[in-house]
Amino acid sequence: MDKIVYLDNAATTALDPMVLEAMIPYMTEFYGNPSSGYSIGRQTRRAIESARKQVADMLGVKPTNIFFTSGGTESNNTAISAALTDLGCTHIISSPIEHHAVLHTITHYCGDAKVTRSFVKLNASGEVDLHDLDEQLAERSAKGIKCLVSLMHANNEIGSLLNLTTVGEICERYAAIFHSDCVQTIGHYTLNFASSGVHFASASGHKFHGPKGTGILYVRDGINFTPFIHGGGQERKRRAGTENTHGIIGFTKALELAMENQVKDQAQIETLNKQMREKLNALSDEISFNSTAESLYTVLSVNFPTGTNTDLMLALLDRNGICASGGSACNTGETYGSHVIAALNKGLAGATIRFSFSKTTCAVDIDAAVEVLGKILEPVKAVDHSTAAIPAD
Amino acid sequence: MDKIVYLDNAATTALDPMVLEAMIPYMTEFYGNPSSGYSIGRQTRRAIESARKQVADMLGVKPTNIFFTSGGTESNNTAISAALTDLGCTHIISSPIEHHAVLHTITHYCGDAKVTRSFVKLNASGEVDLHDLDEQLAERSAKGIKCLVSLMHANNEIGSLLNLTTVGEICERYAAIFHSDCVQTIGHYTLNFASSGVHFASASGHKFHGPKGTGILYVRDGINFTPFIHGGGQERKRRAGTENTHGIIGFTKALELAMENQVKDQAQIETLNKQMREKLNALSDEISFNSTAESLYTVLSVNFPTGTNTDLMLALLDRNGICASGGSACNTGETYGSHVIAALNKGLAGATIRFSFSKTTCAVDIDAAVEVLGKILEPVKAVDHSTAAIPAD
Repeated sequence: MDKIVYLDNAATTALDPMVLEAMIPYMTEFYGNPSSGYSIGRQTRRAIESARKQVADMLGVKPTNIFFTSGGTESNNTAISAALTDLGCTHIISSPIEHHAVLHTITHYCGDAKVTRSFVKLNASGEVDLHDLDEQLAERSAKGIKCLVSLMHANNEIGSLLNLTTVGEICERYAAIFHSDCVQTIGHYTLNFASSGVHFASASGHKFHGPKGTGILYVRDGINFTPFIHGGGQERKRRAGTENTHGIIGFTKALELAMENQVKDQAQIETLNKQMREKLNALSDEISFNSTAESLYTVLSVNFPTGTNTDLMLALLDRNGICASGGSACNTGETYGSHVIAALNKGLAGATIRFSFSKTTCAVDIDAAVEVLGKILEPVKAVDHSTAAIPAD
Repeated sequence: MDKIVYLDNAATTALDPMVLEAMIPYMTEFYGNPSSGYSIGRQTRRAIESARKQVADMLGVKPTNIFFTSGGTESNNTAISAALTDLGCTHIISSPIEHHAVLHTITHYCGDAKVTRSFVKLNASGEVDLHDLDEQLAERSAKGIKCLVSLMHANNEIGSLLNLTTVGEICERYAAIFHSDCVQTIGHYTLNFASSGVHFASASGHKFHGPKGTGILYVRDGINFTPFIHGGGQERKRRAGTENTHGIIGFTKALELAMENQVKDQAQIETLNKQMREKLNALSDEISFNSTAESLYTVLSVNFPTGTNTDLMLALLDRNGICASGGSACNTGETYGSHVIAALNKGLAGATIRFSFSKTTCAVDIDAAVEVLGKILEPVKAVDHSTAAIPAD
């Protein structure tokens, strides 16, 4: 295996060298605790507050709306906890294809009999049935039940998108709190949270060439919440723990680069995504896609013919240096397959694999992957599926 | 101001260049998501598991006892949450001089009427009255109340130490759960948690020249706990969120360096601490210390004469390039002084300042600080305190 072809950018991305360069001074020269009052503490404090302003500007909001966290998962936990603990929500409306950072957090809180949950209906592409959402909110609202709506902006496995503004309007109508896991979209689209109707939004730095262990939570104006992590007075007493200065600087630089090149990067990635779709279509009539042309442009979720098996295909791809995923990396090691694909209930008999792209992906990567996929599919094409033993998925 | 004299190493330490060097490959070449099954995911997974084993070995425990977190504060939150949620504790015995990461977390959980709290008695040096601890546990134990004892190993402001083994034995006697915030001692002493009687212990990488945003929680064998941060299956389903690989590697390298040089570094720091104490004693008869010769060797907490004011002295020190602290950096910006000094109730009328040292501190730093302190104290010495206006602290 000479070269790695990395097509799992929805799992994580390589740190941009310019991001590392921006981080280095905060791992060498500027080490002061940002909460310390003396010169070298004020230095890092200024850097963090300047980063906060920059992030806020890029998301169309105020610096006071931005809280730095250890990642998207912590941000999601914080938002859901705040909605239940501080904002009086007692019912959560979500979807069965949310990331586990949302699903498992909701399950945790619903262990308490005071909080209940329900799922919105989805269409075959994993898009939220807005009529159903409206009805569910109307029903609870009529009973005086305050709801939290937690729906991700883009699904990490299949790329289905949510219209934040429309959902924000529906939530507004019923005085519901709206949280959106935007881990796959912040850094990939130009977003304006001030006008989106979202109360809470989560992002993760390592999804757009920033450092792992960094994230933000956007919190709308006027929301007062008790911290999720208790302790010192950092982050205006909303998130305790000594600030990860180099991480915050890295997150911000990565978002800056992502936003500067957003149009160009999106165009490049969209082209590659389309090319891969076409080449796979040419490979077999039995290949289909869970992502539509309107889905998140960084993701292509592919259903392979009957007779293929996800784990086996991923192992063969890996042996040929191709990195792709059967679902979320966060689920690796689970004994069952993707909960997202299961929820879509498409009755698929073959493998489902997610390929995901970034600005570092190029046309030769796509060609290499399709070539390997062609070879993997040869024996499948050659057998009569009506009698072939299908490995258990 | 030519040079910074950094005497606030209990707040944070400078990243060791060798730690940065160890981290760099995980911020350039090895970027795979450790939860991904392919080659470059397995690469980072191996690095993390090897780091876990190294950390475990250095603390005398098994790799399965170590969980990587975003810092000491998150570790403390996790331990306290686990003791209440999973281990059936309904009363918390702590001390009024714990770090806010423990105190505020306890306050949060005691908002729930199902959990109560009490403080152990302390002596004038801030050391725990073990007889009182025993009595408090005996009283609750007789009533069938299961207790969590949360006491820090070394106080971050005054350096008072706790005998973990003795407290562990007392807790064992009453089947209490013992959590210790070891943020100021892991990396500074050779510790063996397997024999200490501790159920949970917290550490933070940036306190021993490791990266900010990194920590561990030690959890004793046989303790099954629900995660504090919910989501993906990382950290054996006990701490969700994509692993901060470079942070974990940095934490581990920093601990390795700290342990390799522990004896040498401690001897050097102890000498400097003693020198500063002697030089300050020579400066004024009215200077006293909250740290004893047996306290945490990295900290010297100094009470200055009547007529001095903590904030003013810190500002003057800062103007002369000396970095020191009035308490915990995590409390900066609070409108009141140190809760630790207040709890000791010594009736002090002057400033209290913490100087704290590390392997990067040298004799000229001590000399420079004492020289500046001498100048600051000149006008105080010259006035008759019975009539002088004392600035409000």
